[in-house]
Amino acid sequence: MVPSGAMTLPLSPRIQATQTPPIPAVREWAARYDGRAGPVLDLTQAVPGYPPHPDLLAKLAEAAGSRAAAGYGPIDGDPDLRAALADDMARFYGARLTTADVAITSGGNLAFTMAMSVLAGQGEAVMLPTPWYFNHRMALSALGIPCVPLECRAEDGFIPDPDRAAALMAGVRAIVLVTPNNPTGAVYPPAVIARFAELARAHGAWLVLDETYRDFLSPAQSPPHALFADPAWGEGFVHLYSFSKAYCVPGHRVGAIAAGAGFRVELMKALDTLQINAPKAAQAALAWGVKALRDWRAANRDLMAGRAEAFRRAAAQLPGWRLDSLGAYFAYMRLPDDAPDAVALAERLAVERGLLGLPGPFFGPGQDRHLRLAFANAEESVIAQVPARL
Amino acid sequence: MVPSGAMTLPLSPRIQATQTPPIPAVREWAARYDGRAGPVLDLTQAVPGYPPHPDLLAKLAEAAGSRAAAGYGPIDGDPDLRAALADDMARFYGARLTTADVAITSGGNLAFTMAMSVLAGQGEAVMLPTPWYFNHRMALSALGIPCVPLECRAEDGFIPDPDRAAALMAGVRAIVLVTPNNPTGAVYPPAVIARFAELARAHGAWLVLDETYRDFLSPAQSPPHALFADPAWGEGFVHLYSFSKAYCVPGHRVGAIAAGAGFRVELMKALDTLQINAPKAAQAALAWGVKALRDWRAANRDLMAGRAEAFRRAAAQLPGWRLDSLGAYFAYMRLPDDAPDAVALAERLAVERGLLGLPGPFFGPGQDRHLRLAFANAEESVIAQVPARL
Ligand SMILES: Cc1ncc(COP(=O)(O)O)c(C=O)c1O
Ligand SMILES: Cc1ncc(COP(=O)(O)O)c(C=O)c1O
Repeated sequence: MVPSGAMTLPLSPRIQATQTPPIPAVREWAARYDGRAGPVLDLTQAVPGYPPHPDLLAKLAEAAGSRAAAGYGPIDGDPDLRAALADDMARFYGARLTTADVAITSGGNLAFTMAMSVLAGQGEAVMLPTPWYFNHRMALSALGIPCVPLECRAEDGFIPDPDRAAALMAGVRAIVLVTPNNPTGAVYPPAVIARFAELARAHGAWLVLDETYRDFLSPAQSPPHALFADPAWGEGFVHLYSFSKAYCVPGHRVGAIAAGAGFRVELMKALDTLQINAPKAAQAALAWGVKALRDWRAANRDLMAGRAEAFRRAAAQLPGWRLDSLGAYFAYMRLPDDAPDAVALAERLAVERGLLGLPGPFFGPGQDRHLRLAFANAEESVIAQVPARL
Repeated sequence: MVPSGAMTLPLSPRIQATQTPPIPAVREWAARYDGRAGPVLDLTQAVPGYPPHPDLLAKLAEAAGSRAAAGYGPIDGDPDLRAALADDMARFYGARLTTADVAITSGGNLAFTMAMSVLAGQGEAVMLPTPWYFNHRMALSALGIPCVPLECRAEDGFIPDPDRAAALMAGVRAIVLVTPNNPTGAVYPPAVIARFAELARAHGAWLVLDETYRDFLSPAQSPPHALFADPAWGEGFVHLYSFSKAYCVPGHRVGAIAAGAGFRVELMKALDTLQINAPKAAQAALAWGVKALRDWRAANRDLMAGRAEAFRRAAAQLPGWRLDSLGAYFAYMRLPDDAPDAVALAERLAVERGLLGLPGPFFGPGQDRHLRLAFANAEESVIAQVPARL
């Protein structure tokens, strides 16, 4: 018998050149784990290891049960949620932002793809610092947008260097920065972000900032940049956000884009075509939650900081391993020198120790000595078990 | 003061060449309507004008209130919903389909964009019969995939002609058919669909069938084609579906793709990158609803058939207008010869008579004498008022 799919007609070379989804691949390894070291510790995915607020669940239930949430809604989002997010951002960044500045998307990932399709046409490139968030790289690849990697180094704390970037700007239409970073957790200093904004502007390129993890910055780290303070911010800067992490609702698929008027006119076409509207019940509940859950979010930020510290303590016990970077949801660890490469080691950790993490190569070139562990998933008591598994 | 957005950095020529979302544009005209002819009749959007089943609303509420629905889920969908849909399709098409064959998407529109990015790479074209579903055209444009229009004629009932298509196949990677059609409502005969499948196969091209409105086919029109009966269907055929219409839940954003193994391997990359997962609460509720609401769906099909007949009766009273096509949710009407072009007339109907329909040019070239009215939105008593407004 011919193996299923063998005779399939040709598919897009772009999608074939796109990397396979990493998380399912790693979870498959775990199927071969026999449990000898205790229950599986799954530190692959960036999910908060605590439930949504019970009042948010009640609001979600209420909205989802309504006839109103069942119908199509505005392409760029529920005005109440847009207003609530604009207000939250205005406070957080100490800037003037209004409903008009933000659009709601079906998740942060779709926000990125839509932003890229608005920004980069045929033959235009996008710069991604390495290690990168794998779905960003995959999106560019699927869209046929060339990617210019910008190497970040462990010795710089994985902070990208604007001077090195300057040498690589030919043909670059946008620079994408993720801060706090996935996978390293690195928090980019405001001055570095400002320099990238200048660099982009000097080359007629857009700056795209993904701040999915901004709610987990400590008060001392906020505001993380002053970009919104420039009244002309919207002419060259696009901001991406996700409600998945801060509100613990990734399954409901809600994200956002803040951008200027010129960008938003074109964005409407992508929004209409790719999503029609973001899921409405979750938008209604979040419109309530953004303000009402401010203190709860702050408490979770502190909880996450506790987990980060627990992870730091755990990592300190590990001979050979080096904690190169830590922040937001992630620890980015350098493997012991005598370990095999990261993919082989991650597979062994999954199969022999039931510890699931993502090996560096999923995050781009030059990462084969690193492993990302998303400690956000795990309570401190679980984090304490990590050293025994590594 | 410089107008907002005037200094914006360059944006993708592809998105700039993409058409503006039609529905908001038409609704804006209505802001100038003074109410003189009665309340606004909005027949722009394909939405069922009746509520979801109350038990489905209860299931939606229950699922949305759960912690389980808040987390990330499988990239290709909740296995229960996949199984329920596969079973429903197996019955409907009289074919063997299993869970593995289907993936759940964040709406039918995203399903289309994902399917296109799996199928068509750089320089490969996709054929769309005209008039087309505007979001299909917009998606191709935003992705930079050239579109080969295939003209359908009123005198053929807007059924595309495989012989004409054969002459246009150079460089075509996929043919997309929508049946029942949006905007014409035309139902393509099984023999025509079969001929397109052969034509595509003969040219090494994929056949993509969007059957978003299949639940509204009469029993006499079912099964609408025999494509799934070919055990090798998955090698060249991709099927798109939406839960929006049949279950009245467009706001919840759930659609589906059925495809063969070779396609699905690549599809996983698009699913992971663009959606991560489809909204989970709605998937859980629909997993129940697919089977439980079978009779309810059949009753709505009959209700829609009643609206179609009411529309046919109403249209018969209209001197000058010609009902060129009618089916599923839509009537596609030819304007009286002495009327201005469709855009001007649609604007006048909106502003002067409070009747909102979509002018033909939104659906492609050669459509400037047509108007689409989505009668699905309106009860029979409302449909009876249409002639007085036209
Ligand atoms: C940097 C970054 N951006 C965006 C996302 C997407 O989140 P979502 O699509 O759930 O909103 C994630 C999720 O892991 C992320 O890490
Ligand atoms: C032909 C066709 N395909 C797909 C869709 C998309 O529906 P949704 O994205 O709500 O699933 C529609 C909606 O109008 C449609 O008419």
